[in-house]
Amino acid sequence: MASYDPRTHRLMTFHDRAVAFRDGSDTPRALLERCIEAIEAREEEIVAWAFLDLEGARKAADAATARYRAGAPLSPVDGLPVGIKDLIDTVDMPTEYGSTLFAGHRPKQDAAAVLALREGGAAILGKTVTVTFGGGDPARTRNPHDTRRTPGGSSSGSAAAVGAPTIPVAIGTHARGSTVRPASFCGAYALKPTFGAINRQGVFSAADSMDHLGTFAGSLRDVWIIARHMARLAGGDPGHPGLYGGAAPPAPRKPARLVRLDMAGWARTDEATRAAFEEVVGDLASAGVEIYGRGDDPTIDAYEALLARMPELWRDLYRFEMRWPMLQYLALYPDDVPPRLKRGLEEGAGLTQETYRAALVQRAHAKNLHAALASRVDGFVTLASPGPGPVGMDQGSAIFNEPSSVLGAPALSLPLMAVEDVPVGVQLMGRIGGDEALTARGLWIAEHVLGRPA
Amino acid sequence: MASYDPRTHRLMTFHDRAVAFRDGSDTPRALLERCIEAIEAREEEIVAWAFLDLEGARKAADAATARYRAGAPLSPVDGLPVGIKDLIDTVDMPTEYGSTLFAGHRPKQDAAAVLALREGGAAILGKTVTVTFGGGDPARTRNPHDTRRTPGGSSSGSAAAVGAPTIPVAIGTHARGSTVRPASFCGAYALKPTFGAINRQGVFSAADSMDHLGTFAGSLRDVWIIARHMARLAGGDPGHPGLYGGAAPPAPRKPARLVRLDMAGWARTDEATRAAFEEVVGDLASAGVEIYGRGDDPTIDAYEALLARMPELWRDLYRFEMRWPMLQYLALYPDDVPPRLKRGLEEGAGLTQETYRAALVQRAHAKNLHAALASRVDGFVTLASPGPGPVGMDQGSAIFNEPSSVLGAPALSLPLMAVEDVPVGVQLMGRIGGDEALTARGLWIAEHVLGRPA
Repeated sequence: MASYDPRTHRLMTFHDRAVAFRDGSDTPRALLERCIEAIEAREEEIVAWAFLDLEGARKAADAATARYRAGAPLSPVDGLPVGIKDLIDTVDMPTEYGSTLFAGHRPKQDAAAVLALREGGAAILGKTVTVTFGGGDPARTRNPHDTRRTPGGSSSGSAAAVGAPTIPVAIGTHARGSTVRPASFCGAYALKPTFGAINRQGVFSAADSMDHLGTFAGSLRDVWIIARHMARLAGGDPGHPGLYGGAAPPAPRKPARLVRLDMAGWARTDEATRAAFEEVVGDLASAGVEIYGRGDDPTIDAYEALLARMPELWRDLYRFEMRWPMLQYLALYPDDVPPRLKRGLEEGAGLTQETYRAALVQRAHAKNLHAALASRVDGFVTLASPGPGPVGMDQGSAIFNEPSSVLGAPALSLPLMAVEDVPVGVQLMGRIGGDEALTARGLWIAEHVLGRPA
Repeated sequence: MASYDPRTHRLMTFHDRAVAFRDGSDTPRALLERCIEAIEAREEEIVAWAFLDLEGARKAADAATARYRAGAPLSPVDGLPVGIKDLIDTVDMPTEYGSTLFAGHRPKQDAAAVLALREGGAAILGKTVTVTFGGGDPARTRNPHDTRRTPGGSSSGSAAAVGAPTIPVAIGTHARGSTVRPASFCGAYALKPTFGAINRQGVFSAADSMDHLGTFAGSLRDVWIIARHMARLAGGDPGHPGLYGGAAPPAPRKPARLVRLDMAGWARTDEATRAAFEEVVGDLASAGVEIYGRGDDPTIDAYEALLARMPELWRDLYRFEMRWPMLQYLALYPDDVPPRLKRGLEEGAGLTQETYRAALVQRAHAKNLHAALASRVDGFVTLASPGPGPVGMDQGSAIFNEPSSVLGAPALSLPLMAVEDVPVGVQLMGRIGGDEALTARGLWIAEHVLGRPA
């Protein structure tokens, strides 16, 4: 494997292609063919795709090419080659939720977010591999930077395809760490938005109060453009106001003050990853960003104490919420429930409504503290994972991801570090509803650290 | 048709049967056979059922009979003959959402609430008729008290089957008036619980932030027992604490103070219904219940002013939320979308995310005012509908139902009035989370007005 350097590793980008489509120096069809070529070169070793619809994508790309020629693209995503995690419904392709139980399943409709991409003119290339029902078992996808390693899960195929890179953008989901973690391992930019900010209707979820629609891209500007497009056309989840912000990516904004968080994960982080993270934090401090942490403010200490309990809180919420439909699947179709999902169900069988209610109260308390602190700073910086994707098929630890999942706070993974010659992401967490401001700060940080456009 | 008198009209009850099952004077199988006999006598004219599974119900009733004989019933619903609205998934029966698009559709799992009933030993008789996708078009069911009239919708079959009576209990849904309205027209007791209090997973919903799982029964005690059982086993919606209260129905409790609400509906209420309602309110006042209304308190005036705008607010929320999946169904399967649903989609096509956000802010404001007022009184009394079910197949007005749907506040329909020789319900609305206290007040009011157990 070649050595990985985040400063020089090339990812595929789209917003610059949209400019080239407009001036005629590139076309959606040509971009799509470059993606198909890259997929054909890497797919056998990476296994990112559960289903490919090259014919459908070519037809959509040709239509987009004609629209750009006529000077009338449909939207900022017109002609975008995109992959859809296979937990997300598509009307024209099988949607199997990574499971044998849904082999060949054809939904009667697109998920709301997929419809938004389709109506905007995107060329949907296919369905990316997911872990079965988004649970804890291994996926068959491999890390594009080192195929002995996991790409992370459960949005394994989406992260691997963008990080390889074989496509510029993919969408996934995130109920524990399923967007931020694989983005960290595969070296992609990703946004797990504020809870409810991007419509999840038509998405399989086993932890409904913590699940989010995530966006992976080779550029943080593309992450924003695609996320905002989906939210504009599809809205947020019902009852939620949806993603706030403009259609264009925000300008990079230097953060004045960041809180550096250890969470429960720092104690489980290897030395090389710690060193790489300290280097990034030191770089920010040298540039004049004020960094606060444990010991600097009693609110931060109280917040860290709460965050340390998040893995346990996440587990109680997940195990209660996954009971439907998983307990029924286990009873009716036991052969279709893989071992780790089965174990989680068995371990959670004794959970009571009272335990769940207590977890909801703890979550409300943590959200209050998060909001109080978030209003005084420009974000929270921490790791996106406790190290690179481990060797083997295990999905890797989500210990740095559970807090934002429980809180519903937006989180970015920024591909700023190399550890053991493979990527590890820096995580930037923001205030609830502050996705656009978070993206602006993420852009400044990434461009400062990498010294190139993000 | 015989003259309808709520004081003497007999409905089917279950909690007293459960006592008889225990002492051996009745059995679940015998109760089921009485239901089947009643269904066979009335079904041709009422058309309450989309699908009947008599064999499955008999098998479940026999198993329950054996458990009672062994002195070991499974739960308070063991042996309960129950109907399930056809918007609610069942693994062993077709679930068609009242639509041609889903003809013969077989879900892979029970809805969470259905599973709770099944695991408690209930004998699921079949699927009750719903309006197509729970929308505004007519259902084919007829009012059991006067078959020229509508039973109301969209839980048409559930309300008609309980009001006829042919069964003691049925479940339905409610996103506008679909539980409280048909209960009013058919003379059934019903609870539309606090938003999120009973798990809706596996239920088709076109207005997700206003939809509720409703319970119809021939007794308010049964309403409570069944609702609480479902919430205990299935929990509430993910992220919600679920229905609060004990497994047994609360003791009747005399309300000290009630707010009498006009809402937008009073101006649309016929004279006979107004007179019947004034009689009920006068009866409560004579018994020493303090009744407050417009002019008695500036908070009530402000609240009434907000309630008058609820039909408009409901419409904005509904039309935005119904877009998925309905706009897609309209595009892909236009012949499967009935006329009123189609018109609603067309009229709502111009709604923007900004309009929806503004509606959410208005809802939050109304919920604050509702909570402030609800903390000072024992409930809100109003009509459940502006009169009896109209002649014809139109579902009738939901103008008295939109406020509790928008607010997510619990509401009961109590069959306390006769107008034009058919039922009209009194609606009692409570504070969010206060379903048990509401039921206790509803029991006292119903028993006071009817002079018999409720």
